[in-house]
Amino acid sequence: MDNKYTSYIVEYDKYLDLVQQNIIKLLPDVDGLARVLRESEIYSLSAGGKRIRPVLVLAACEICGGKVQDAIAAACALEYIHTFSLIHDDLPAMDDDDLRRGKATNHKVYGEAIAILAGDALVLNAAEILVKDAIGTSDETLRLGKLKAMDIITSLAGNDGMIVGQVVDIESEALLLNQSNAEDTENPILQADYIKRLDFIHRNKTGALIAAAVLAGGLVAGADDMQLDALRQYAEAIGLGFQIKDDLLDIESTTEELGKPTGSDEKNAKLTYPSLYGIAASYRKLEELTFAAEKALDVFGERAAFLRDFALGMQVRKN
Amino acid sequence: MDNKYTSYIVEYDKYLDLVQQNIIKLLPDVDGLARVLRESEIYSLSAGGKRIRPVLVLAACEICGGKVQDAIAAACALEYIHTFSLIHDDLPAMDDDDLRRGKATNHKVYGEAIAILAGDALVLNAAEILVKDAIGTSDETLRLGKLKAMDIITSLAGNDGMIVGQVVDIESEALLLNQSNAEDTENPILQADYIKRLDFIHRNKTGALIAAAVLAGGLVAGADDMQLDALRQYAEAIGLGFQIKDDLLDIESTTEELGKPTGSDEKNAKLTYPSLYGIAASYRKLEELTFAAEKALDVFGERAAFLRDFALGMQVRKN
Repeated sequence: MDNKYTSYIVEYDKYLDLVQQNIIKLLPDVDGLARVLRESEIYSLSAGGKRIRPVLVLAACEICGGKVQDAIAAACALEYIHTFSLIHDDLPAMDDDDLRRGKATNHKVYGEAIAILAGDALVLNAAEILVKDAIGTSDETLRLGKLKAMDIITSLAGNDGMIVGQVVDIESEALLLNQSNAEDTENPILQADYIKRLDFIHRNKTGALIAAAVLAGGLVAGADDMQLDALRQYAEAIGLGFQIKDDLLDIESTTEELGKPTGSDEKNAKLTYPSLYGIAASYRKLEELTFAAEKALDVFGERAAFLRDFALGMQVRKN
Repeated sequence: MDNKYTSYIVEYDKYLDLVQQNIIKLLPDVDGLARVLRESEIYSLSAGGKRIRPVLVLAACEICGGKVQDAIAAACALEYIHTFSLIHDDLPAMDDDDLRRGKATNHKVYGEAIAILAGDALVLNAAEILVKDAIGTSDETLRLGKLKAMDIITSLAGNDGMIVGQVVDIESEALLLNQSNAEDTENPILQADYIKRLDFIHRNKTGALIAAAVLAGGLVAGADDMQLDALRQYAEAIGLGFQIKDDLLDIESTTEELGKPTGSDEKNAKLTYPSLYGIAASYRKLEELTFAAEKALDVFGERAAFLRDFALGMQVRKN
C-alpha cells in the first residue's frame, strides 16, 4: 500500500512537472505597452491548485497508448480555460469573491476591467495554442486526434458544458433565495426541480471540464470508441465525486472553524449534494462513485493504476 | 459610376445573405434549462451592424481564388468574436454603456452575470465552429488553410491584437484623465507617448480584427505570400481609415445634435486621431489611406473591384 501510494505520487509529479514547465512558456506574449494583461494572466495561472485537469489529460493520453508530449497543448489549454472561469466567477457581478486559495482574486489586484480581459484572453490563448499545435503536427492521424480533442474542449467548456452550468447555477441561486424567503421548501414539485438543477449544475459546471480533460487525452492518443466510453464513465464518476467531496469539505471546514454546522454554501443559497441529501448519504454516494470510477477502468487493465488511485483521492483530499 | 455602385451593392448583399443564413444556424445549441444564455447571445448577434468583418472574410477568400462556402465558418466565428468584444466593452466595469445602435446593451437586458457569460460563450463558440469545420474538411490542403485562418483569428483577437488594444485603451483613459487634471497637455514627451498609444490602440483594438478577417479569407483560399502581403497592407489601411471615419462622425454628429464642436470621445478622455491631429488633417489622412488600400490591391487586378469599392466606403459611411 505504501509503495503503491509512493508510485502514484511519483507519477503525479511527473505529469505536474510537464504542466509547470509549459504552462507559462506556451502563453502567447504581449506587447510591452499591455504587459499588465500578461501579468494578470500569469498571476491567476500561478495561484496554486493541483492542476488536476491537465494531469488527467496527460494520464488519459498515456493509458490509451499516446505520448504525453502530444497532449501538452491540450493539458495547458484546459488549465487556461479553468483559470479563465475562476477569474470571471470571482467578479463582483458573479460570486463576488475577494480571496481564492488565500490570495487576493484577480480583480482585487488588477481591477475589474483587466480581470475581465485577462479571462477573455485566456480563452483565446487556449484556442490559439491548440490550433498552433495542430498546425505544427505533420502526422495527419495525430493532427485529426488533436482537432477532436480541441472540439471536445471547446464544446464542453461552452454551450454543452461549463458555461451553461454556470448560467443555471446563477439562475438557481436567485430561485433558491426567493424560495427560502417564501418559506416553501417542502413543496415536492420544487424539490424535484432542485434535484434536476443540482444534477445539471454538477454535470456541467464542474463535471464538464473533468470530462473534457479525460476525453481530450484519449482523443489525442487516438482512443477507440470502447476506450472513449470507458473514459466518459470514469470522468462522470470522478466529476461528481470531487464535487461532493468539495461540498462536504465546505461544510466540515466551516464546522471546525466557525463552530457551527452550516457551511458557506448554505448561507449563499447554493444547491449542493449534502444540502439536499444530507451528509451520511453524501459519503455513501462518494463510495459508490469511487467504485464506479474504478470499474470503468477495467478495459485498460494494469495501465489504469494511476487513474484508479486518482479516483481514490476523492475520498481523502480536496479537489 | 451608378452601374459600378449597383454591382457593389449586389455583391455586398450576396456576402451578407450568406452570413445571415449561417450565423445563428452555426451557433451551438444549449440545454433548455440554460436557454437564457443562447437568447442573450442571439440578442447581441442580431443587434444590427453591417457585418463588415464576415463580409471581408468572404470577399478576401474569393479574390484569392477560394470558394466562399469554405470561408463561412471563419466569417461567422469572426462575427462571434466581434460581438463578444462589444458585449464585454459595454459592461459597467469597462465603457459602461446602456445603449448600442439604439438598443439596450446586453447587460441592461440580461444582467451583468449573463452578459459576461454570453461573451465568454461566444469566444468558445467561435473556436468550436472553426474546429468542427476543420474536422469536417477531408481535403488536407484546405484543412490546413482553415487551421491557419483559425490561428490568425485567435492570435489577432487575443494577445497579439484586439484584447491588448483594449487593455492599452483602458489604461490610456486613466492616464489622459490624470493628465487633463494636471493641465500639462503641452508636454512634448507626453504628447509623443499619446501618439504611440493612439497608434497602438488603432492597430490593435479595431485594426486587428479587420486584418484577421481579410487574412483569414486569404488563408482559407490558400493565398500565397505575395497575396497575403497585399491583403495585410490593404487591411492596415482600411482598419485605420474606418477608425478615423468613425471618430470624425462622432465629432460631427455631436456638433449637429448638441450644437457644440466637441464630441463624446473628448468628454470621455478618449484618444482619437481627430483630437490629436485636427479635423482637416484627419480628412487628408483618410484620402491617403483610401489610396493606399486601392494600391495594395493591384496584384489582384480586376478581381479586386469589390474590395476597392469597399475601401471607398470609408470616405462616405459609418463603420
